Amino acid sequence: MAATESVGTEVSFVRKEDGEAAAEEQQVVNPWEVSAGKGGIDYDKLVDQFGCQRLDDALVARVARLTARPPHRFLRRGIFFAHRDLSEILDLYERGERFYLYTGRGPSSEALHLGHLIPFMFTKYLQDAFKVPLVIQLTDDEKFLWKNLTVEETKRLARENAKDIIACGFDVERTFIFSDFNYVGGAFYENMVKVARCVTYNKVVGIFGFTPEDHIGKIGFPPVQAVPSFPSSFPHLFSGNDQLRCLIPCAIDQDPYFRMTRDVAPRIGYQKPSLIESRFFPALQGENTKMSASDPNSAIYVTDSAKEIKTKVNKYAFSGGQDSIELHRKLGANLDVDVPIKYLNFFLEDDNELEHIKKEYKEGRMLTGEVKQQLVAVLSELVARHQRARAQVTEEMVDAFMAVRPLPNMFG
Amino acid sequence: MAATESVGTEVSFVRKEDGEAAAEEQQVVNPWEVSAGKGGIDYDKLVDQFGCQRLDDALVARVARLTARPPHRFLRRGIFFAHRDLSEILDLYERGERFYLYTGRGPSSEALHLGHLIPFMFTKYLQDAFKVPLVIQLTDDEKFLWKNLTVEETKRLARENAKDIIACGFDVERTFIFSDFNYVGGAFYENMVKVARCVTYNKVVGIFGFTPEDHIGKIGFPPVQAVPSFPSSFPHLFSGNDQLRCLIPCAIDQDPYFRMTRDVAPRIGYQKPSLIESRFFPALQGENTKMSASDPNSAIYVTDSAKEIKTKVNKYAFSGGQDSIELHRKLGANLDVDVPIKYLNFFLEDDNELEHIKKEYKEGRMLTGEVKQQLVAVLSELVARHQRARAQVTEEMVDAFMAVRPLPNMFG
Repeated sequence: MAATESVGTEVSFVRKEDGEAAAEEQQVVNPWEVSAGKGGIDYDKLVDQFGCQRLDDALVARVARLTARPPHRFLRRGIFFAHRDLSEILDLYERGERFYLYTGRGPSSEALHLGHLIPFMFTKYLQDAFKVPLVIQLTDDEKFLWKNLTVEETKRLARENAKDIIACGFDVERTFIFSDFNYVGGAFYENMVKVARCVTYNKVVGIFGFTPEDHIGKIGFPPVQAVPSFPSSFPHLFSGNDQLRCLIPCAIDQDPYFRMTRDVAPRIGYQKPSLIESRFFPALQGENTKMSASDPNSAIYVTDSAKEIKTKVNKYAFSGGQDSIELHRKLGANLDVDVPIKYLNFFLEDDNELEHIKKEYKEGRMLTGEVKQQLVAVLSELVARHQRARAQVTEEMVDAFMAVRPLPNMFG
Repeated sequence: MAATESVGTEVSFVRKEDGEAAAEEQQVVNPWEVSAGKGGIDYDKLVDQFGCQRLDDALVARVARLTARPPHRFLRRGIFFAHRDLSEILDLYERGERFYLYTGRGPSSEALHLGHLIPFMFTKYLQDAFKVPLVIQLTDDEKFLWKNLTVEETKRLARENAKDIIACGFDVERTFIFSDFNYVGGAFYENMVKVARCVTYNKVVGIFGFTPEDHIGKIGFPPVQAVPSFPSSFPHLFSGNDQLRCLIPCAIDQDPYFRMTRDVAPRIGYQKPSLIESRFFPALQGENTKMSASDPNSAIYVTDSAKEIKTKVNKYAFSGGQDSIELHRKLGANLDVDVPIKYLNFFLEDDNELEHIKKEYKEGRMLTGEVKQQLVAVLSELVARHQRARAQVTEEMVDAFMAVRPLPNMFG
């Protein structure tokens, strides 16, 4: 698939449109910054710029057929919308071969928000559907390097975040969770060094936008996130299985890491990882704003109470409804900018119900308050379920998921 | 000692003298390149440029007094000629406190030559004299990054080199030998990341001369060699002793790593390591030439037979003697360029005998052939003794030195 990839091109790009100021139109997408132009993220442009492939209906249908279950709503609704070589993974799966999943999280905060759950909810579905092993990387070292945190604090956050991840329902018999500070070393470190030897400073500047004033911790970090793509980084799981293919579910801002990884892989005798990539989850204030740790009202957290959820949705969720009931009944809602509809699109499972709400709302028969009420119900249930699951997660369970051990029945 | 240090200045420098071409006068000294100007390495200039301190007679006498034994010939003869904060180490030792030693080797070749033994012979003396623990780092990762070798080959070379190091007579009860590929991880990796966060790309360019075309493995490597300076990198040895001071015996080309390390140490709450630094061991062909792995006749290897040593010394060791016996008797030898005298200066223990040979040779009463005969005798004995010691080193002994374990009687 080399022809469709643009390895090493700049991640961030400026899009200018006639008569509009460049500053307003700058779209920056990299692992540390996502900022949209005026009209929100232009995902089409991103796919072209990154050189990944669109995840079309035929591919979604193929996933459904091969797994003998309905595709996840994130697939049905184009939330996971792009990929790299997913077809190759499906080809080998169809032949009876297996692969493994790799996803991760940078543990920079205590509580996760709903956006953080997206890749884990989707990965849980993939694990169940394909019955494959999964490695989850907690990049505590990355957060130490990028944030003003101590090593101890990032390690603590990694463990706390692991509890939320486990609460998503992963199967301990197929899942290995690790933090870099605990796991880097041995075969993993050897692969880090192998990757690092293949990537110049100029290259990481091109891919990640580093500058000469950046510290060498940042510049040296990308191999750490690259090497879980290679089964030989996990000898306790995949010993003797060095060519096992890897599928990475992630948000598309992580694509730069894996473009780099795919470029390096054949040069060190490894398989390129495949990717399945999602859109971003919007802030309550809308697509063009950012969920921010410093503004708790920009996001719903998995620790929020039902009351907090209700207040946040009612008070802050940007509405596409009209200013007065009369106008709304007449013109209907603008679904393109309406955050409650976007959130329902992520979390309301029933397609018919979702379509019904969208139609009624768009045509003015349903009011913003009614849609928000639906959303509050959906989110409250989701968050309460998560909180119940997380309350069940003991320190011993965390130890079990994070133990360096073989996985029984990995492909069973 | 901050005032005397010049952290971050360029290591390599150009010295121009009147009427001479700049190219001929370039003196480059960094961990990967040592090339002298026309008159050989200008060590005085190097000390000023690097901002380290001269190791004077008073300090040597103090070492002798504190250790209650004669100073090593490398000290008596100014072979270890520079230092950083050695006095502080002696101060604390005098107060009854202890420190630890750290030295290392980049395992890029199977057989060591005599120059490689210098730091280990000297470190063995320091260990015996001060009765302190020692860590020896084998930077197999560095050699993988800089040389066209496989990971497996660098790991094998590290183990082979460990045997030669053990043959120098280190005390297994006070010595921990580790290779990076085996040991990086845990507390050591945490320290690597802490150091990396404090050093910008611009800084390593200034210190090590990296370029944007260099790979990020090289750019990210310096913290790996920095962190054995910090006791917390070895929790199995120094747990709870995070402020224990470290003394590093090394050749002066390694100074850039430790200038960087000393700059970073106080910023992450650690003690600066002290250094004691040696001149370079000359090639058989003279000070201005290089011992080269591709030219076995440029150096005496610890694997050479007595016959090979005799042939190499007689055939290749650059002589400061005159072209004819008549002229030699009349003018005497030029000791400044004479390699046999330089080698005897490193390896002939008896000061009186050395002075006698130098005087007789300089005044023309001794011929080059006679001096070479003395050198062959000294080296043959040294190498034969090393070979006997190395033959005694078993795989089990290597395992014992490299085991991650507490050291019994560390300061006993």
